[in-house]
Amino acid sequence: MTEQEIKDQDLKYNLHSWSKQGNLNPIAVAKSEGIYFFDYAGKRYTDMSSQLVNLNLGHSNKEIVAAIKKQADQFCFMAPGYAVESRSTLAKMVIDLMPDNMGKVFFTNGGADANENAIKMARMFTGRNKIFSRYRSYHGSTFGAGNLTGEPRRYPLEPGIPGFIKFFDPYVYREAINFADEEAATAFYITKLREQVLYEGADNIAAIVMETITGSNGVIIPPKGYLKGVRKICDDYGIMMICDEVMAGFGRTGKMFAFEHFDVKPDIVSFAKGITCGYVQLGGVAVSKKIAAYFDDHTLLCGLTYSAHPLACAAGVAALKYYKDAHILENVEKVGKVLGELLEAFKMKHPCIGDVRYIGLFSALELVKNRQTKEPLVAYGQDPEGIMGGIIKKLIGKGFVTYSHENMIMVAPPLIITENQLQEAMTILDEVLYSVDKTI
Amino acid sequence: MTEQEIKDQDLKYNLHSWSKQGNLNPIAVAKSEGIYFFDYAGKRYTDMSSQLVNLNLGHSNKEIVAAIKKQADQFCFMAPGYAVESRSTLAKMVIDLMPDNMGKVFFTNGGADANENAIKMARMFTGRNKIFSRYRSYHGSTFGAGNLTGEPRRYPLEPGIPGFIKFFDPYVYREAINFADEEAATAFYITKLREQVLYEGADNIAAIVMETITGSNGVIIPPKGYLKGVRKICDDYGIMMICDEVMAGFGRTGKMFAFEHFDVKPDIVSFAKGITCGYVQLGGVAVSKKIAAYFDDHTLLCGLTYSAHPLACAAGVAALKYYKDAHILENVEKVGKVLGELLEAFKMKHPCIGDVRYIGLFSALELVKNRQTKEPLVAYGQDPEGIMGGIIKKLIGKGFVTYSHENMIMVAPPLIITENQLQEAMTILDEVLYSVDKTI
Repeated sequence: MTEQEIKDQDLKYNLHSWSKQGNLNPIAVAKSEGIYFFDYAGKRYTDMSSQLVNLNLGHSNKEIVAAIKKQADQFCFMAPGYAVESRSTLAKMVIDLMPDNMGKVFFTNGGADANENAIKMARMFTGRNKIFSRYRSYHGSTFGAGNLTGEPRRYPLEPGIPGFIKFFDPYVYREAINFADEEAATAFYITKLREQVLYEGADNIAAIVMETITGSNGVIIPPKGYLKGVRKICDDYGIMMICDEVMAGFGRTGKMFAFEHFDVKPDIVSFAKGITCGYVQLGGVAVSKKIAAYFDDHTLLCGLTYSAHPLACAAGVAALKYYKDAHILENVEKVGKVLGELLEAFKMKHPCIGDVRYIGLFSALELVKNRQTKEPLVAYGQDPEGIMGGIIKKLIGKGFVTYSHENMIMVAPPLIITENQLQEAMTILDEVLYSVDKTI
Repeated sequence: MTEQEIKDQDLKYNLHSWSKQGNLNPIAVAKSEGIYFFDYAGKRYTDMSSQLVNLNLGHSNKEIVAAIKKQADQFCFMAPGYAVESRSTLAKMVIDLMPDNMGKVFFTNGGADANENAIKMARMFTGRNKIFSRYRSYHGSTFGAGNLTGEPRRYPLEPGIPGFIKFFDPYVYREAINFADEEAATAFYITKLREQVLYEGADNIAAIVMETITGSNGVIIPPKGYLKGVRKICDDYGIMMICDEVMAGFGRTGKMFAFEHFDVKPDIVSFAKGITCGYVQLGGVAVSKKIAAYFDDHTLLCGLTYSAHPLACAAGVAALKYYKDAHILENVEKVGKVLGELLEAFKMKHPCIGDVRYIGLFSALELVKNRQTKEPLVAYGQDPEGIMGGIIKKLIGKGFVTYSHENMIMVAPPLIITENQLQEAMTILDEVLYSVDKTI
């Protein structure tokens, strides 16, 4: 097919996510390699969001591709009830990466159904109903995951599921209070959370679900001691602590899982994206040994046809091996440091930047009209003139591919990016930010 | 890894669907081919349920495997926003197979999220909230799909989502009334449904969701005129008719989609399983041209990272081509006729069979203690002695692999099965049914 046929047929027959379909103009992709992909005219794009922050090991990783082909030669699919080498191998590899309290894995197709099953398991295990999750969070768009979600992508799922309760995340930059330091912020948020738990009835609460580091809603990094505070609340009241590591997991922050930065052990971890980098779809839920043992003699009322898909598991085995063999965490630490320095330098010179937040190769720039008042470049949930879309379009036009959310720009390149590649790409962002400066 | 290592590691680290984990003994699968798979000792199993009624084209189909490898060489993944050849090609192929009122496809990872998105789209398009679905149905186990589901696999999701309403399916065999004929049954069920629609407020109802032919809950085939009756109710009140073709679609019943048997055009079709036969996970929602046009200037508030996964779409293109090139529908018609004759003959000679229901290569045997009273072999939701499990175990021991649901045994082999292969496998079932006869 020609480029034009691919585009025309795409627009004629496909519904695109989160969009009005009437004015789309998708790039037709011919090939991809490392941190780059190419259209049919040969134009090169630098993938500065790792697609949807899932392609941690970049495009067309040879080892993962080879593993997929090898598994396809044995068989692509056997139902979840069978023992299959790639399935057994990956489950062990995942648990081996986790803290020592973790016991077993239930594999799914992606992050949304990982979160769906995580809350089902927490309810079954605790016998309780209520589920706490946070505003400014994204956990998926199916009914369960969408009800966890604390932003407009939840709205089509309302009226909501009974028992899903929201609390505020520790978004210090825009908090109504000025905190003296991180500890003061933590004291405030943890006190408020404990108060809300008590007023909802601690004995009714099955789980507190959090993105360990909030992703799409702006890379919100919890202040020092916050996650330990949540852990303490969970321990005090028998509540399951569920860390959603779908976006932050698998090296994105410089650790295999983001919760490792904060010295806590969750009861349940949901994951997806980086485990296969999306080469084949895979997500999962890891649960503590205690929860796993509960299901020895209680029926696990979870299931999906493609749970622990053999081809996906084979891709996962190859990906996890690659993280280790290619010393990916070390690269994230090294290049992540440069990313942080660049973002701080950008903040110094671009008045349109209100805040930069970064950890490893996971970062967001928050754009404002006025740095003193912090008035966002576009108001929450509103961008009738398409200002943010215009900035993204300009970036992509210059070959810097990423996406925005509200007034924020994500920068989260593949974890294999080199310092030089990062420097080169960031000059494009720098240039576009100058043009934004002129508009405020 | 050795067979024992694979099994041990599987049980140590994996959570298995719908099971107590304490007493599992999974078969470790070494290879698979056509309608067979093999354990590490070389024992051959005939796959008489097409795994989970998804492997319509059987195991290790060479064309699908080759297509997966070819796509993996180009790239495995690009985000849903990009135009990709396999994605464009498959979307057109799916719409070309559908009735002429259908317009566009939204691809997902499987059947559950297909149904989740189907009801979201129906709500957005109609601006209404209530969703009708049926008892004795299975639509998936995520919160939305699980709330559609009308059997015990829904229970962990309760309290339910507001606005999800259940009605009874046309389960004529166990109806409290004896109908003179199919038309009388249809008149009864459609009258009751219309009455319920009116009493729920027709203007509040976004969609009526049905498995076109109920699958896991016992291959319940609607009586003559039933689906046209539902279509008429939908037309009268502006309700979207959603056919769940996850299990019944893609040749299973002898037509590409089961609704083709009944001369109706749905507004929305959810599908999965047979589109790729599970070689790579794929599901989707096809919507009418009218619904598709609505989303030209209204935001489609649906999305998932792996929507229209390129590798899955490549598998789908190869599978759909194979259905056609290998004349699969013709084989289903031919061998399905033999299956029907065998089942009727079994019913004649085995008093433990209360009913057999079949269409194409989609069938179920309903086991009873007493054919006159129709008392089921195990009571609904109860099988403390594991009677059905015991029958399945015996079948699998003899190399006939399938699964049961309540008092029913599924027989749904790959659509490539020959008449001789079917005859050979069914002698095993015959033999085991004799042993069941003796217990009643």
